[in-house]
Amino acid sequence: MSDFALAVDIGGTKVAAALVAADGTVAERRVVPTAGSPDPEEVWRPVAGLVADLRAAAGAGRVAGVGVGSAGPIHLPEGSISPVNIPAWRRFPLLERLAELVPGVPVRLAGDGSCAAVGEHWRGAGQGVDDLLAIVVSTGVGGGLIQAGRLVAGPTGNAGHIGHMVVDHDGVPCPCGGRGCVEAMSSGPSMVTWALKSGWQAPVPAPTGVDLADAARAGDPHANEAFQRSGRSLAAGIVSTAAICDLSRVVIGGGVAAAHDLLFPPLRAAIAEHGRLAFLRQLTVATASLGNAAGLVGAAALVLAPEAYAGRGVASLT
Amino acid sequence: MSDFALAVDIGGTKVAAALVAADGTVAERRVVPTAGSPDPEEVWRPVAGLVADLRAAAGAGRVAGVGVGSAGPIHLPEGSISPVNIPAWRRFPLLERLAELVPGVPVRLAGDGSCAAVGEHWRGAGQGVDDLLAIVVSTGVGGGLIQAGRLVAGPTGNAGHIGHMVVDHDGVPCPCGGRGCVEAMSSGPSMVTWALKSGWQAPVPAPTGVDLADAARAGDPHANEAFQRSGRSLAAGIVSTAAICDLSRVVIGGGVAAAHDLLFPPLRAAIAEHGRLAFLRQLTVATASLGNAAGLVGAAALVLAPEAYAGRGVASLT
Repeated sequence: MSDFALAVDIGGTKVAAALVAADGTVAERRVVPTAGSPDPEEVWRPVAGLVADLRAAAGAGRVAGVGVGSAGPIHLPEGSISPVNIPAWRRFPLLERLAELVPGVPVRLAGDGSCAAVGEHWRGAGQGVDDLLAIVVSTGVGGGLIQAGRLVAGPTGNAGHIGHMVVDHDGVPCPCGGRGCVEAMSSGPSMVTWALKSGWQAPVPAPTGVDLADAARAGDPHANEAFQRSGRSLAAGIVSTAAICDLSRVVIGGGVAAAHDLLFPPLRAAIAEHGRLAFLRQLTVATASLGNAAGLVGAAALVLAPEAYAGRGVASLT
Repeated sequence: MSDFALAVDIGGTKVAAALVAADGTVAERRVVPTAGSPDPEEVWRPVAGLVADLRAAAGAGRVAGVGVGSAGPIHLPEGSISPVNIPAWRRFPLLERLAELVPGVPVRLAGDGSCAAVGEHWRGAGQGVDDLLAIVVSTGVGGGLIQAGRLVAGPTGNAGHIGHMVVDHDGVPCPCGGRGCVEAMSSGPSMVTWALKSGWQAPVPAPTGVDLADAARAGDPHANEAFQRSGRSLAAGIVSTAAICDLSRVVIGGGVAAAHDLLFPPLRAAIAEHGRLAFLRQLTVATASLGNAAGLVGAAALVLAPEAYAGRGVASLT
């Protein structure tokens, strides 16, 4: 009778939750804005409401467990979280709270990049691929790693941080405090900032990545170069990951990657330029297929397919 | 009575072999130059001689198996090799030949970078560390990866190629055909080439890394900058690997790393500069402790500790 996983995706601007069936189908999905309060309990309340609603919607005994993906950092083994963009939560005991709310079933937590990778591996564009990197290019650049068919989250749960791989060692400052990171050139905000500095005349005072894509398609050279630069930087991170981990495929999703036509040509060209060794030339590049549901589907898989996805680096309470 | 592994280390300039005991002690060690002949059999003959000699030295029944590390690429699952610097050997069936020579025991093959990492993890500076990157900085830059206490060699056996991670995406050409790779800035020959181009007045016509280190210690600014540049490039590759794999330690060995005093200060400074996220700040950097025996000790461990080191990515015949 346990038909669904109750999946939760904690982000800095919104929290999503869903009932996910064993075939990966998202049966019910709810989204609430992340509360901006400095009080951790006020941030928790709407999340708890979402979870309680979905549990009621599923019906008694039909929730096999709760899987959560969260913006990082996450803390193992206790399953607390300190998302950079949710300042009210510092070592907030998310796993414990969820276990109180939905007792008697497994509750598991992983980073959001890991969950996106698990989602794409379990039911998306990475199915059947044993060695996979999934990337989400959006406000930041996140990712997750599958090796030998299993999630590799690392000893601290933080593996997969392609956004902070260094691809230009004398490069521009990154929000992390370092410089030359993939995220410093490839995230939506970094692309917009760079284009504006280079002379892009944006049509609105606070332009977004969508505005930048429109400008690039209309032929603006600065907007175009921002996509070229983003694609080249991502490609360097991808080739580096393939060199160190021996990958078979990379799948790329997120808001910036939605502009395939602009991002993928320079990205593919730069992968071909950098990845010359024979084992690197076998790497395939695909677009993510689950859209913004990847994180929820992956969070569900922490509960529904634990042998592959709920090992080391995933916090777990039963 | 099977007291030793017979370990072999195949390189472009020399082939080493040894009897290695279960505690990692190297009991007998022999080295021959790699034959320069275009005939694969002439390259094989001295290797076969070395192996036969050591088997005889060990005594009947005292060889538990044969472990080999080789310069790449290696080909799985058949265990053939095509070392870049041994042109006579293209898909040379090394594993099969060794099994004919030493029948009735396991024979296993991994890449030389993987064997160095295994050696340092099993009996060197990486003991007890579950998530380890080992780097050999020499004529090239190689490496190997340990995750969760086990060798990760990848589906093709080529994981650990830190030398071809991209740390300067618009950077200088690399022997691999790409550019901006770690090896293009950090290997001994690339350092010498760069220093000469920058104005270093070398004391001899074909200077080596040792000459460069002497010049740096005597205060030559170009020679010094070559070490700075090498250290910074390695650091970017190390931080990138830590970001994607969630490492605990890196150990660094090889001829260039023997100049600790010149290489490690810029390397450590650049790791601190780039690795700002909390989980990256926990990374420790150590010098390799087995010297040029790491590859032999690691090759022995493929046979003597197979549960940790002879999984996926290692070719095996029994």
